[in-house]
Amino acid sequence: MGSKIVVNNYGSFDVTMAYGKGSTCYDVNGKKYIDFLAGIAVNCLGHDFKPLVDAVSKQAEKQIHVCNYFTSDTGVEFAEKLLKATDFEGVYFGNSGGEANEAAFKLARKYGFLNGGEKRRVIYTLESSFHGRTLATLTATGQEKFHPPYFAPYVQGFKTIKPNDWEAIKTSFDDTTAALMIECVQGEGGVNLIDPKWAQAAAQAARKAGAIVMADEVQTGFGRTGSLLASDELGFEPEVVSFAKGVAGGLPMGGILFRGKANGVFKAGDHQSTFAGNPLACAAGLVVLNELQKPGFLEGVKEKGEYIRSQIKSWKNKNVGEVRGKGLMIGADIVEGLSAVEVEKKLLENGLLTSTAGKNTLRLVPPLNISQSEIDEGLEILRKTLETF
Amino acid sequence: MGSKIVVNNYGSFDVTMAYGKGSTCYDVNGKKYIDFLAGIAVNCLGHDFKPLVDAVSKQAEKQIHVCNYFTSDTGVEFAEKLLKATDFEGVYFGNSGGEANEAAFKLARKYGFLNGGEKRRVIYTLESSFHGRTLATLTATGQEKFHPPYFAPYVQGFKTIKPNDWEAIKTSFDDTTAALMIECVQGEGGVNLIDPKWAQAAAQAARKAGAIVMADEVQTGFGRTGSLLASDELGFEPEVVSFAKGVAGGLPMGGILFRGKANGVFKAGDHQSTFAGNPLACAAGLVVLNELQKPGFLEGVKEKGEYIRSQIKSWKNKNVGEVRGKGLMIGADIVEGLSAVEVEKKLLENGLLTSTAGKNTLRLVPPLNISQSEIDEGLEILRKTLETF
Repeated sequence: MGSKIVVNNYGSFDVTMAYGKGSTCYDVNGKKYIDFLAGIAVNCLGHDFKPLVDAVSKQAEKQIHVCNYFTSDTGVEFAEKLLKATDFEGVYFGNSGGEANEAAFKLARKYGFLNGGEKRRVIYTLESSFHGRTLATLTATGQEKFHPPYFAPYVQGFKTIKPNDWEAIKTSFDDTTAALMIECVQGEGGVNLIDPKWAQAAAQAARKAGAIVMADEVQTGFGRTGSLLASDELGFEPEVVSFAKGVAGGLPMGGILFRGKANGVFKAGDHQSTFAGNPLACAAGLVVLNELQKPGFLEGVKEKGEYIRSQIKSWKNKNVGEVRGKGLMIGADIVEGLSAVEVEKKLLENGLLTSTAGKNTLRLVPPLNISQSEIDEGLEILRKTLETF
Repeated sequence: MGSKIVVNNYGSFDVTMAYGKGSTCYDVNGKKYIDFLAGIAVNCLGHDFKPLVDAVSKQAEKQIHVCNYFTSDTGVEFAEKLLKATDFEGVYFGNSGGEANEAAFKLARKYGFLNGGEKRRVIYTLESSFHGRTLATLTATGQEKFHPPYFAPYVQGFKTIKPNDWEAIKTSFDDTTAALMIECVQGEGGVNLIDPKWAQAAAQAARKAGAIVMADEVQTGFGRTGSLLASDELGFEPEVVSFAKGVAGGLPMGGILFRGKANGVFKAGDHQSTFAGNPLACAAGLVVLNELQKPGFLEGVKEKGEYIRSQIKSWKNKNVGEVRGKGLMIGADIVEGLSAVEVEKKLLENGLLTSTAGKNTLRLVPPLNISQSEIDEGLEILRKTLETF
C-alpha cells in the first residue's frame, strides 16, 4: 500500500502506521508494535506526548511559520534556552540532519578560506561515518557503499580518517585542513563508539594544524546517549555541533550550534533556509528541551540503555555477538550466517520495531521516555524472536 | 532581540513576530502588519486557518513522525491525492526546497548515467535562477553573487542557459546533458517570467539530446501562480517537478514529483531523508490540496494577482517601473536611484510585509486566500508609502 507511489526509497516494509501512544505504535489493521525505533531516533518523547501535542496545537493556532527576515517570539525563546543549556554562542536552524551538515560544511569552508585562503579547503570525516544524502553530505559520508558511480562527480574537498587510529592522527592534518568532523557515535555505521581519548587527540592535532573541529550529533544529540550532547562526554569541545533527529520531538528540524573560532564566520546572506527556525518546530523544541532538563531524565536514559544492554547480554543467545552503545543508542551485532535484516523482519512480524545498521547490526533507538513495562515487553519479544533462529 | 544568538543570516529586521490571523500578522508589541509576504510564499492559507490548525492538532495527537521503513495512512492519502491532482506517477518527499532540488539533481545524474554513462553528467539551469543553499543547489543557482570564493570548490557538472534566448537552445544540449531544469517563474531572480514557447522549445531540444526536463516549482508550485503547477501553464511537460514552500501550509516540506522517463530511476536506497513524508506535514498538505481544489480557488488567485498588478500600475507612481507576475507572485521594479530594500523597510514600518528580489524589485507573495479587504488595506499602505519617496 502506497509503496508504488511514494518512492520505495528504503525498501520499505509493507506496514502502514496509523497512530501511537507512548512507545507503542499501531498500524492500520490495529496491530500493536513496541517502538524500539522511534522513527530512527526521532520520536524522543514517544507518541501522543501531551505537552508536545499541546504545544504544537497552540503554536499552530498562533503562527506556524515566520520567515527569517524577522524573528518569532517562540524561535527566540527556543534559541536562548538552547544556548543556555549547551554552552554555545550561536545557533543556525535548518530542517534536517543533511541540511545541518551542509551548513556545517559551508561554515568550515568559509573558516578555512578566511584562515588559510584557497589552500585550506579539506574537511575530514571519519571512516564508516554517515552525514546525509545531499550531494555534499553523501560525499562526506565515509562509506563507499553510499558512493555509487551514477551520482558522480562527488564534491571535492573531503577526506576521511580512520577512527581510533592513533597513527592517522599524526599524518592527516596540515595547512590544507579546514575542519575535522567527528560523528560522536556512528549510527548508520553500526553503532560504533569513538574512544574519547582518540577524539580529543584528533581534535588537538586538527586545531594545531589550524582547523576547526565539528561534531555530527544528528543522531546522538538531544539526550540520545544520556547527555544533552554526546560531544560533552567525549570531551573534544567542538566549535560546531550539527543536530537534527529528536530536537523537535518528530517535527522536521536540524541545525548547527557554534562557538569560539566558528562564531561570527557566517555573515548575513551566507546561508539560509526558508523554513529554518519556524515557530512550530521551535515550540516543539522547547518541550523536548524542557523534558530533557528535568532532574533525572538524562540519568534515566543512561540507566535504561544499560538495562537493555545487560538484559540482551544475559541471554547469551548464540545469534548475538557484541552488544554496545551509549544511552538509548544500542547496537547488537548479529553473528555471521544470520542476517540482521531477517531478524528485523521477524521482530516486526512479532510486534517490535527496530532497525539495522553497519554490516550486520541490530540497532535499538527507542523513545527516551520509554516506560519500564514497554522496555520489558519489547525485550521479551526480542528474546523470544532471537531464539527462533 | 534574538539576532545576536540566532545567526543573523538574512540581515533580519528588528521585528519579532508573535501571531497571525488570516493575512494579518502581529509582532510582540502588538503592531499590526498586512501580510504580502506569507513567510516568502509559504503561508499559502494565511495564519490561524482553522482546517489547517485542526488537521495539525489532530495529527500531532495521532502520530507526528513515522520513518520511511513504513508508510503512514496520512502519508499514503496525501501522496495518492497529490498524484491524482497532478498527473504524475510518483513522489519523493523531503523537507525543503533545497532538499527537493538535491533529490532532483541526484535523479537527473542517475538518469544521465543510465542513459549515456559517465559522459552524460551535465545539468543545465537558467541564468538568474535560484535553486537553494546546499552546496549543489547553490552551484546550480544561476547568479554569480551566490558563489563567493569562500564556499569553493563548487560542485562539478552544472551549466547555465540564458532564458528566452533562442540561439542558446541550438548550441547548449548534447550527449553530455543529463537534464535541463527550468525555474517556472524566477522568484529570487526578480519575478522573471519565462516565455512558454521558449520553455517548450528548450525542453524539446534537451529531450532530443537525450536529457530529461525538470521544473523547479519550489516557489511557483501549489497554486502560487493560479495553477496547481506553473509548468502546466508553460506547457513543457517536465518529467520531474520539485516543490516546497506552500505545500504544507507552513510546515517544512518539499519533494519531487516524477513521471515518464524519470519514473523508476530511484531504487531503494538511492535517496532518503529521515523526516521525509512525515504524517504531520502530510496532514497539512491534505488541507492545502483540498483548498486549492475547491471550485474557483485557483481562479481567485489569478484574479487577485491581476487586481493587485492593475492597481499598482494605475497609480502611475514615479518610483515604480515594470509590474509583472503570475497569479499571486508579483514583482514591481523600483526605479534606479531608489533602493527596493529602502521601500521594503518603509513598508514594514508602515505595517506591510513584503520582500525584495533580483536587482531592485519589490516582491509581493501574499497568502493565496487573502481577503479583498486585506488586499485593499495592503495596497493603500503601498500606495501611500510609495508617494513618500
